[in-house]
Amino acid sequence: MDKYYYGYEEFREDTRVLKSKVLGFDAEAIVAIARGGYAVAQALAEGLDIRNLQSIRTELYDDDRKRENITILGTCTFENIKKVLVVDDIADSGETLAHVMEYFQNNYPDVEFQSATLFYKKSSVYEPTYWVQEANVWIDFFWERDFL
Amino acid sequence: MDKYYYGYEEFREDTRVLKSKVLGFDAEAIVAIARGGYAVAQALAEGLDIRNLQSIRTELYDDDRKRENITILGTCTFENIKKVLVVDDIADSGETLAHVMEYFQNNYPDVEFQSATLFYKKSSVYEPTYWVQEANVWIDFFWERDFL
Repeated sequence: MDKYYYGYEEFREDTRVLKSKVLGFDAEAIVAIARGGYAVAQALAEGLDIRNLQSIRTELYDDDRKRENITILGTCTFENIKKVLVVDDIADSGETLAHVMEYFQNNYPDVEFQSATLFYKKSSVYEPTYWVQEANVWIDFFWERDFL
Repeated sequence: MDKYYYGYEEFREDTRVLKSKVLGFDAEAIVAIARGGYAVAQALAEGLDIRNLQSIRTELYDDDRKRENITILGTCTFENIKKVLVVDDIADSGETLAHVMEYFQNNYPDVEFQSATLFYKKSSVYEPTYWVQEANVWIDFFWERDFL
């Protein structure tokens, strides 16, 4: 499969676009899905001046991104919070994000959750509320390459 | 006070240096202090191949970085984990990091915690276990500037 190095400059431009897309939602908290969602979640939190930045992580059993094999780890707290933006780098298979969104909505029924990613694959089972680019190749995000 | 724009290229170099410094600790989990610690924690987690990436955040009362005015929010879980690296961007006053390290060590007495930051100010009340640059001016980190 073709690989595409996604560097910081492009990330900066796309994250600015993503920021303008999520602006109207007026999120009061941001949840990053670890590890991939960290840089974009931080950038959005800074850009939107949202101090409430939290994260969760998922574990895959059998390295298989089927929903039943994904465990969600970590606890978020949404005290007096009505709107939360869940952030990841890419909706690839979409199983992780679908599972996380389902989990949050079931566990915090009084909170409205929306999702934002930089990339979205048409084959994903879940389409994020907001996304910037369609992914047609394998994306090598700078944080996955630059520190090896 | 002088301000210094700290861009991605310098961040990349420094984070690689930081990675080489923390390598010997063999951390099994990384905790980012939100918001400032997110990018560097993600980079270290990717570079060191540590999947267990978590975060906590702090709130200041009266915008005053005295230890008694800092509240720690969020819960970390360290099941079967013996060594944890706590990551922030800078030890400035050092009160936040001092408080967080104290909190972790008191609440998880069986876990060894070390800390890593990109910058350290000589006037900080706390010196991180690992740091890269001494800060003599106000640092404008790229994630605080590039998405406004």
